Amino acid sequence: MSAYGPIEYRDASPEVRAVFDDIKRARQVDDVNNFWKYLARDPATLKRTWESVKEVMATGRLDAVTKEMIYLAVSVTNGCGYCIASHGAAARKAGMTEEMFGELMAVVGMANETNRLANGYRVPIDAAFGS
Amino acid sequence: MSAYGPIEYRDASPEVRAVFDDIKRARQVDDVNNFWKYLARDPATLKRTWESVKEVMATGRLDAVTKEMIYLAVSVTNGCGYCIASHGAAARKAGMTEEMFGELMAVVGMANETNRLANGYRVPIDAAFGS
Amino acid sequence: MSAYGPIEYRDASPEVRAVFDDIKRARQVDDVNNFWKYLARDPATLKRTWESVKEVMATGRLDAVTKEMIYLAVSVTNGCGYCIASHGAAARKAGMTEEMFGELMAVVGMANETNRLANGYRVPIDAAFGS
Amino acid sequence: MSAYGPIEYRDASPEVRAVFDDIKRARQVDDVNNFWKYLARDPATLKRTWESVKEVMATGRLDAVTKEMIYLAVSVTNGCGYCIASHGAAARKAGMTEEMFGELMAVVGMANETNRLANGYRVPIDAAFGS
Amino acid sequence: MSAYGPIEYRDASPEVRAVFDDIKRARQVDDVNNFWKYLARDPATLKRTWESVKEVMATGRLDAVTKEMIYLAVSVTNGCGYCIASHGAAARKAGMTEEMFGELMAVVGMANETNRLANGYRVPIDAAFGS
Amino acid sequence: MSAYGPIEYRDASPEVRAVFDDIKRARQVDDVNNFWKYLARDPATLKRTWESVKEVMATGRLDAVTKEMIYLAVSVTNGCGYCIASHGAAARKAGMTEEMFGELMAVVGMANETNRLANGYRVPIDAAFGS
Repeated sequence: MSAYGPIEYRDASPEVRAVFDDIKRARQVDDVNNFWKYLARDPATLKRTWESVKEVMATGRLDAVTKEMIYLAVSVTNGCGYCIASHGAAARKAGMTEEMFGELMAVVGMANETNRLANGYRVPIDAAFGS
Repeated sequence: MSAYGPIEYRDASPEVRAVFDDIKRARQVDDVNNFWKYLARDPATLKRTWESVKEVMATGRLDAVTKEMIYLAVSVTNGCGYCIASHGAAARKAGMTEEMFGELMAVVGMANETNRLANGYRVPIDAAFGS
Repeated sequence: MSAYGPIEYRDASPEVRAVFDDIKRARQVDDVNNFWKYLARDPATLKRTWESVKEVMATGRLDAVTKEMIYLAVSVTNGCGYCIASHGAAARKAGMTEEMFGELMAVVGMANETNRLANGYRVPIDAAFGS
Repeated sequence: MSAYGPIEYRDASPEVRAVFDDIKRARQVDDVNNFWKYLARDPATLKRTWESVKEVMATGRLDAVTKEMIYLAVSVTNGCGYCIASHGAAARKAGMTEEMFGELMAVVGMANETNRLANGYRVPIDAAFGS
Repeated sequence: MSAYGPIEYRDASPEVRAVFDDIKRARQVDDVNNFWKYLARDPATLKRTWESVKEVMATGRLDAVTKEMIYLAVSVTNGCGYCIASHGAAARKAGMTEEMFGELMAVVGMANETNRLANGYRVPIDAAFGS
Repeated sequence: MSAYGPIEYRDASPEVRAVFDDIKRARQVDDVNNFWKYLARDPATLKRTWESVKEVMATGRLDAVTKEMIYLAVSVTNGCGYCIASHGAAARKAGMTEEMFGELMAVVGMANETNRLANGYRVPIDAAFGS
């Protein structure tokens, strides 16, 4: 097995297949995304990451589309191309319309701008916000 | 006037006062936050930034609390201390409960983790997401 | 000597003193900034960093104030508090006025915003810019 | 209309066309860059962003080439591929020579290095710089 | 209970106490760090994060000091003040000497510099590294 | 000579050739990587960067594979595609196995997650770590 690249279901060990099966069942898809196939190089990280993502992204006080939009906002800020593509798709599947995406991007852009204005002007935290 | 620091209302030029007045009216507060007092060093940036923030943060398809949470997610990712404090306060004022904040932070943390896993494993974008 | 903290001139080894002397001579100051006193924990890094900074910041096709403003723009983008303070001071010493600082910050803020808009909208590079 | 991709002039609404026309006039170009065609998905962001960029990038105390180099320094620090390409081209058009670009890159690299040295050595801000 | 701040052991719920006890046992300390006391606001994140950290930081092919130095390198790059302090302490406890820290910082600084040189010069990936 | 792109050995000036020759000798390779060919546009930066990298990456208290893994951790965190590819290859050449890479990535991911948890929960530095 080469040192780098995806692991397909047919080549996967039983423990990797178990995670792939759980992803496919939870998301009702026929195949898992590249992300999971590449993580499968390290079965412990594959399993831990999937279980954390499943727990974190489950609907709680925030619904699925809100969580996916927050995920997307972080990915856009970090400039992670894969994550922007995959979580953009996930957000749209969860109900994000083009108008909602437009508003999300406007907030993300503005936050990245004002973050630097606050940094550069060395603005001290207002007493009202706590120390 | 020193080269650095906040400009208080009593020391402000008419154009700066006009922006401060608009902020106080829009947010129904007695005084503006430090951020605006420091930006007041550059009246053109003060005016442009406030008008952009007002437009971007207005309720549209996304409500106020969702927008503030997205702002907070970006600020946390960038590690902007002032912005985390101010937009954390704004998000709470707009209705973010402690449980919602907990879920927000869980998503932000997970997104920052998986962004790096995608980077490091050099995962190519799935055809299904577009090129 | 404790494992962490600044090294003052009186406590410094001859090789550290030689670098401190060169900094004081080049910048015509009585004492070096905290940055150099902390780096002095690792004399090799102290020497290499000072020599690189001295070479890079020397006037060439770009003059001193332009170089300091670029340094500041990077530091603001990274949110490095120490670097914003020290290179803000250096830029002012080199001739940056409050108006110039205001314009610098406006550009830095705008660049951080549009960087994320380009990321999020997944804009492909125009053919005219080269591949 | 699909949910993703550029909007060409021929398919644009009157409000988008008005912005495109203003960009073409201001920059004396026959067509706008991909950035604006993708932003056109959200006409409000297109209009606000263009008006801000036009205001911020106008010659003031800093000339056009200095502003474009600062823009480029931020884009390089953030690793925004599109922005590096487009603002690299804009900076060259405004007069940045290859030697100036080399010096710019040397400063950007050095600033990113020393930002981390300041972080890691936990250097406190010198009293001389203000608190 | 206020909406923000640490939760001490005496005020903690049984599920939070169980995590605190496990941390104290694993690390052989009398009290947990502030990080865990603040995370305790969200017991699910506290539990998941501790279990992940425990699994990830366990000795495997990489020993404890190597893992802590990698953790520190990331924290320095991100400019996370708390994390630099806490993982600097952890790395020293695991055996990082002052000389090792100096070399670590030199590599972190150099990597942050060359990352930007590679970005700015738009260097394409060599065929030898894979596409 | 065009304003952008690599400089091959056959087209290089004597000072650039001298650096290329030193890289080839030190690394025992037939040709230098693209990184150096692009840097060759600015011979001063080429020379200074190579000499710094050679000094920093030399075996000291940390061995070559540890240094390359730290370099890789930073590059993954910054999302520098070229650097991930080139230093991933260098780390593997220096002895990083697939298992070691998996553990490295797990730590990098976890550090990026907990950095944001520390930011967002605004955790103050424990007295035990120093102020």
